[in-house]
Amino acid sequence: MATLGMAVLGCGRIGRLHARNLARHPRVRLAQVFDVAGEAAQQVAAELGVRSARSVDEIWDERNVRAVVIATPTDTHVPLIVAAVKAGKAVFCEKPIDMSLERARACWGEIAADAPVVMIGFNRRFDPSYRALRERLKLGEIGRLELAVITSRDPAPPPAGYLQSSGGLFRDMTIHDFDMARYLAGDIARVHAFGANLVDAEIGRLGDIDTCAISLRARSGALVQINNSRRCVYGYDQRLEAFGSGGMLQAGNRHETSVASWNAERTTGRDVVLHSFIERYAQAYEAEMDAFVAALAEGRPVSPDFADGVEALRLAVAAGESLRTGRVVELGP
Amino acid sequence: MATLGMAVLGCGRIGRLHARNLARHPRVRLAQVFDVAGEAAQQVAAELGVRSARSVDEIWDERNVRAVVIATPTDTHVPLIVAAVKAGKAVFCEKPIDMSLERARACWGEIAADAPVVMIGFNRRFDPSYRALRERLKLGEIGRLELAVITSRDPAPPPAGYLQSSGGLFRDMTIHDFDMARYLAGDIARVHAFGANLVDAEIGRLGDIDTCAISLRARSGALVQINNSRRCVYGYDQRLEAFGSGGMLQAGNRHETSVASWNAERTTGRDVVLHSFIERYAQAYEAEMDAFVAALAEGRPVSPDFADGVEALRLAVAAGESLRTGRVVELGP
Amino acid sequence: MATLGMAVLGCGRIGRLHARNLARHPRVRLAQVFDVAGEAAQQVAAELGVRSARSVDEIWDERNVRAVVIATPTDTHVPLIVAAVKAGKAVFCEKPIDMSLERARACWGEIAADAPVVMIGFNRRFDPSYRALRERLKLGEIGRLELAVITSRDPAPPPAGYLQSSGGLFRDMTIHDFDMARYLAGDIARVHAFGANLVDAEIGRLGDIDTCAISLRARSGALVQINNSRRCVYGYDQRLEAFGSGGMLQAGNRHETSVASWNAERTTGRDVVLHSFIERYAQAYEAEMDAFVAALAEGRPVSPDFADGVEALRLAVAAGESLRTGRVVELGP
Amino acid sequence: MATLGMAVLGCGRIGRLHARNLARHPRVRLAQVFDVAGEAAQQVAAELGVRSARSVDEIWDERNVRAVVIATPTDTHVPLIVAAVKAGKAVFCEKPIDMSLERARACWGEIAADAPVVMIGFNRRFDPSYRALRERLKLGEIGRLELAVITSRDPAPPPAGYLQSSGGLFRDMTIHDFDMARYLAGDIARVHAFGANLVDAEIGRLGDIDTCAISLRARSGALVQINNSRRCVYGYDQRLEAFGSGGMLQAGNRHETSVASWNAERTTGRDVVLHSFIERYAQAYEAEMDAFVAALAEGRPVSPDFADGVEALRLAVAAGESLRTGRVVELGP
Repeated sequence: MATLGMAVLGCGRIGRLHARNLARHPRVRLAQVFDVAGEAAQQVAAELGVRSARSVDEIWDERNVRAVVIATPTDTHVPLIVAAVKAGKAVFCEKPIDMSLERARACWGEIAADAPVVMIGFNRRFDPSYRALRERLKLGEIGRLELAVITSRDPAPPPAGYLQSSGGLFRDMTIHDFDMARYLAGDIARVHAFGANLVDAEIGRLGDIDTCAISLRARSGALVQINNSRRCVYGYDQRLEAFGSGGMLQAGNRHETSVASWNAERTTGRDVVLHSFIERYAQAYEAEMDAFVAALAEGRPVSPDFADGVEALRLAVAAGESLRTGRVVELGP
Repeated sequence: MATLGMAVLGCGRIGRLHARNLARHPRVRLAQVFDVAGEAAQQVAAELGVRSARSVDEIWDERNVRAVVIATPTDTHVPLIVAAVKAGKAVFCEKPIDMSLERARACWGEIAADAPVVMIGFNRRFDPSYRALRERLKLGEIGRLELAVITSRDPAPPPAGYLQSSGGLFRDMTIHDFDMARYLAGDIARVHAFGANLVDAEIGRLGDIDTCAISLRARSGALVQINNSRRCVYGYDQRLEAFGSGGMLQAGNRHETSVASWNAERTTGRDVVLHSFIERYAQAYEAEMDAFVAALAEGRPVSPDFADGVEALRLAVAAGESLRTGRVVELGP
Repeated sequence: MATLGMAVLGCGRIGRLHARNLARHPRVRLAQVFDVAGEAAQQVAAELGVRSARSVDEIWDERNVRAVVIATPTDTHVPLIVAAVKAGKAVFCEKPIDMSLERARACWGEIAADAPVVMIGFNRRFDPSYRALRERLKLGEIGRLELAVITSRDPAPPPAGYLQSSGGLFRDMTIHDFDMARYLAGDIARVHAFGANLVDAEIGRLGDIDTCAISLRARSGALVQINNSRRCVYGYDQRLEAFGSGGMLQAGNRHETSVASWNAERTTGRDVVLHSFIERYAQAYEAEMDAFVAALAEGRPVSPDFADGVEALRLAVAAGESLRTGRVVELGP
Repeated sequence: MATLGMAVLGCGRIGRLHARNLARHPRVRLAQVFDVAGEAAQQVAAELGVRSARSVDEIWDERNVRAVVIATPTDTHVPLIVAAVKAGKAVFCEKPIDMSLERARACWGEIAADAPVVMIGFNRRFDPSYRALRERLKLGEIGRLELAVITSRDPAPPPAGYLQSSGGLFRDMTIHDFDMARYLAGDIARVHAFGANLVDAEIGRLGDIDTCAISLRARSGALVQINNSRRCVYGYDQRLEAFGSGGMLQAGNRHETSVASWNAERTTGRDVVLHSFIERYAQAYEAEMDAFVAALAEGRPVSPDFADGVEALRLAVAAGESLRTGRVVELGP
């Protein structure tokens, strides 16, 4: 099997992670990396023994690069997706597609005719535990899904600088949970959101919230609850609970070790939960790149795709509207 | 210390339970039991060696009976509370006070001048695990409460006959969770409810739901999520999760034994969860009667009191309105 | 069904416990209690509304007393068993039968011709979790038993006064685990014991040990490991693990509540384990008395019986010999 | 920092594992691999892009190879260790050093004067959970160690061919647990072993056992229990329990996912335990190679060292003697 020539755009934390995973992927030849901060790209290039492109055009022009990973700031996603597709590249783009639902849809309008291959980086779909839970659900282990509870709590708020351009809690953080809701329960018909500013007053001053309780109603009739916080002292709390006519499946957190302690104060104490999304979802990041590469190699459609990215964004926008109006937002088909 | 003369009105499942707990309570002398179905009362009376009253008036007239437990059908609660208070008895009344918020308020109007002592049977407040969780929360173990998740799933729907007069999911079942939300988070400011009919089509035909996802916003700013189902194949699923600035406290289910099994298919399999509320909350039922008796003996106010019963009912009514209108319901002070 | 007249001999902690359980047993009429310290007996008698016998002869003479519970100091067990049997009473006797294996056997010699009914108080056989584990084992859930691990750790050493007359760790504490080994694995063929004095130097000065690691080989071929300590800061640690050709069954500890806590230092912290054998085995104490009463009422043999008591003592004696000689002790049939 | 030139001898399952880990180790340059079955070596060499040596002499002669990993059959360990040391190489050798304690000691006699660097492959010391447990123990978290329980059960017996030359259960499998006992409790003074042939009659025909219960007494006074089985239907069961004056630490198994299931038969069912030692100890294999490389680079002594390998073997031999004689075996200093 021929290896797949690839490039990574954006050499921040997540771009470096993808670049490293691709560099050791047996079916991939990582050819180039790029970052507007040339130094960041050169560092990654040196570490991995690949070329550092001087411009994105260099990548578009490189015939041996058949696919690109877009891990740049959100406001550059749409133009880069368009350019990559026009240059004939398959695209893996980090979430969200854009802050604006309209721009995301317009992006599709521009590329739809080009038979675009665009996968969106909803990494949690590739977490071994979440994936296994969903497969067992689809196999009917607990009958029809009736209720799901998605818990997602970040260890600490992002830096103020990032917050300002983050698009807000729903587009930045909850978007993963919206995608997870769709992954488990299918398309969503109605959205309700409560939000609060409990963690950091600075977040409130930016007009954002840091805590939320969201209810979704799927077209199937199933109900989904999401709860988020921007701060969690015991680590990066990531859990799923799916309840159905025949039982319940839960997927839980990961710990550094399996050690548990008993003493005069308490018993069965475990380590705190893995703090970093890099560690918590290390296997997921590898698996999603694997899935992208395999789909390309085998000519299968990628998943989650551009439409999934749009749908998750639509839920984020609807949640924002619900928060403002105090009404349930109905989603058309 | 003198023992407290008491009577139990209503000899159904819950009335019998209270009667048995009182019969062996060291500070109580159970004097009488009553049921409109005289035979039911006679059976309990014979078992416990107490008198079976021929009418409620007999109980009102009995000077040695200082307190009564009202465990009759819901529509008799208000008249019995009024009569008991007018007869100078302290009252322990099962939830809900009434199906109608107006009638419940009117009831208070009738008795308020009589310095009434009325405790409402929100037994879960007395579950050792829920109680310990709340005490630790109040002691500041996890800092300020920011989010709570209340899971409450019945093993199976009640019989059709009961359903018809149950007042609907929110007033019959969720009312316990509304009270629990207040127990943890204090007064509630806003209510949103999604409901679905997924378990039993008959419930839908009765105009009721059997599955729900509720979001509450407390005056304190804390958010609370409740999820309910009328059917749970692995038992009576009763769990709390309280999340705060300093951590999380969870209270879980109870199992018949501590046995866990490992085999070629799976590991750490435990018994199903206790199926019956009688078993799950056995300690809670004893403890709430204990608390009632102790409050009377020591002249302290009872808790949860009539106002707590009204507030839980108000939340149930608001949830119904939210379900119908698709709007958040704001609660005045 | 006629109730069974019973008496309790010995009104210490365990005697009082049995007396209370019998006083509320529906098939039993507790007639008398006795203690050489008359005051102790009078207190229990007053609490439970029964007679306080002035001598054991009074009990032997009382025709309505058909069965007795012997909860007196160990050195009085044998004479009381003999006297009770000679007086035609069924006997429930606390463990151990005696400190001396020879005296225990001689006791049987004296009573064997009288068709004696003697049950020994190995309460752990009646713990719901241990019992369920054993039933599932016997039903073949994990195939043939190959290995068992019995963990038994006391919260704290008994008072020095008690230690002196306790007969040593093996006869006083491990004897329960020897019985549990037989309950799970059947008759034992070989015994090896290591012991150490790690907890309290005073125990060493008394010539005793406070920590042990014991290996048993059952006639079936199965191996059993027992570990004991006289001190356990996190409570009364009582666990079983049975491993077989088809899997493993474990039975674990009990906690006051189901609350678990997550914070910045650690996660899933539970309460300490129940500290007192009275609480840990509350259900077991009730169930063993129930089993005794039911066996008498239905004319079935009691279990564990006198021979079980002798066998457990034989294992305790053999463990002592192994500890002294550094050899495995082979047990004849 | 200069990279360390290394070679791997033996390209079976464990040799390939080490070779792969070294090939991607940032501080190592894997230069050569060797196997008497040349094809096995060529395959690994091709996969990793390294040379396949035609003879061990080629490796001894290669000045750039400063350290070797010996992962060949046990009976070649001693001659290869000697040759490697004489050639000036540092050695990492898989356990056991040899089947014969005398030969292992003689090996040391031959090399002692050469300031040999020999690390033995007791990989479990590098498992993150076991390592963390031991570090917390050494930091005094549970006070003085009093008792340890080591559970180690293989998913299935090795092939008959391997069994014949395995040296028996104690030298092949339990040797890891003997090392773990020393890792936790320090030097061992006394050994007792029970063994049984319960899993596979073929093993008995070979004069070996497949199930054992071992008791050790450390010089410190602490007691250690080991239990082993050659078959475990729920996976590769690997657990530690350390009990001390101040509490208990446990280290447990690893599962493929964190998914747990609840249904009408049972609750909290988890995946079976990871079946393969390759997966269970994947991190440990990386970490031990890391430790070897770091020790060489920094001129620190390796650990576990040759003496640790001898001591574990001595315990295996003593256990065999105890099994035969039914006596405790005392170990001199």
